[in-house]
Amino acid sequence: MTETLLTSRTTVHRHPERGTHEREIINRILDEGFICHVGFVSEGQPYVIPTGYGRVGDTIYIHGSAASRMLRNLEQGIEMCLTVTLLDGLVLARCAFSHSMNYRSVVVLGKASLVSDPEEKLAALRAISEQIIPGRWVEVRQPDTQELKATSVLKLPLAEASAKIRTGGPKDKEEDLILSVWAGVLPLSLVPGTPVEHEASVVHEVPPSVAHYSRAKTRE
Amino acid sequence: MTETLLTSRTTVHRHPERGTHEREIINRILDEGFICHVGFVSEGQPYVIPTGYGRVGDTIYIHGSAASRMLRNLEQGIEMCLTVTLLDGLVLARCAFSHSMNYRSVVVLGKASLVSDPEEKLAALRAISEQIIPGRWVEVRQPDTQELKATSVLKLPLAEASAKIRTGGPKDKEEDLILSVWAGVLPLSLVPGTPVEHEASVVHEVPPSVAHYSRAKTRE
Repeated sequence: MTETLLTSRTTVHRHPERGTHEREIINRILDEGFICHVGFVSEGQPYVIPTGYGRVGDTIYIHGSAASRMLRNLEQGIEMCLTVTLLDGLVLARCAFSHSMNYRSVVVLGKASLVSDPEEKLAALRAISEQIIPGRWVEVRQPDTQELKATSVLKLPLAEASAKIRTGGPKDKEEDLILSVWAGVLPLSLVPGTPVEHEASVVHEVPPSVAHYSRAKTRE
Repeated sequence: MTETLLTSRTTVHRHPERGTHEREIINRILDEGFICHVGFVSEGQPYVIPTGYGRVGDTIYIHGSAASRMLRNLEQGIEMCLTVTLLDGLVLARCAFSHSMNYRSVVVLGKASLVSDPEEKLAALRAISEQIIPGRWVEVRQPDTQELKATSVLKLPLAEASAKIRTGGPKDKEEDLILSVWAGVLPLSLVPGTPVEHEASVVHEVPPSVAHYSRAKTRE
């Protein structure tokens, strides 16, 4: 499968030239991010909650406390929307109106379902961990039975999805180009700072997962 | 008003110690961010779309093309959720289960309405611009009548809202503290890169708004 399902619900209407359903592009965006915003409806009210996620092939996993309102709602198999947004920069034009942002975003629609198979559940948790900080999983103590029980994992098929991408400089009107205003792009990126060791840490050497942490990468 | 409306819908159930309805805290988070994720329902399907926003007192403004699906949906006065998430760091524990993230997020629930007053509309656009890049608005050409017409602005009252905050190091179980695993926090922040001048720019000096750009600030 190289394309996700094109439906009227995932058609990019505004700036259709920025939209795509190509799976490779969608995967690359999903793999570079690690925070999604999950939308669901409870008693007529939409809620949008940030959470981590992981991708394994054609499936996206999210997890949370078995007691969380979001998870309890979603595991009923209700409609959800999972959106991942990578912000790449501010697009600074000569006029206020033409200002924009460079970004890559993916919107996935579908119904979540509870992962009950223990092996799939563990693999999903590992995928979520790897998405957030690659290499960390093998450095730490694995979840025990009780911890697994306290965690719910939901899966969402990566079937109905679209990506939207804006790149490049400002698109000013011809007559604005002569204005004496600096125009261009201010790149933005999520950058790690200096690791802060826990006061009770018995190990003082920062592990590879932390020392070489960078968001600008893909897992092709 | 120092507190937003506390309702069952904005009660923080999971980790209630991380939740607050204090307006000052909510404002500070809203003022530090500039991207929100807006949730709305169309034909039973929730959608989550990233967009810019601005705060003026007790009101949050978002804008978009008058033709956008999101704006057309929301201006009907349907229920929406606006979520702002600031990611502060990865919390790295000794066991996989205790990993977490440091973040500050705000969830606002309510009904959006269309801003029709031209003065309020212009002030809202200015607020959105200032939220994204303070000081830029006065450096550039202001919107003309046609540009204002092509833009819709919606307002959402900052009435029913809550913040959720996690700070600090990992909270491992007592028996895990002796594990020979580095534990601590890896701070993350959104950092500007080197400005990229547009090829047709007639001005080559980077303006103050760009030269001194930083996300870690508030507008108290």
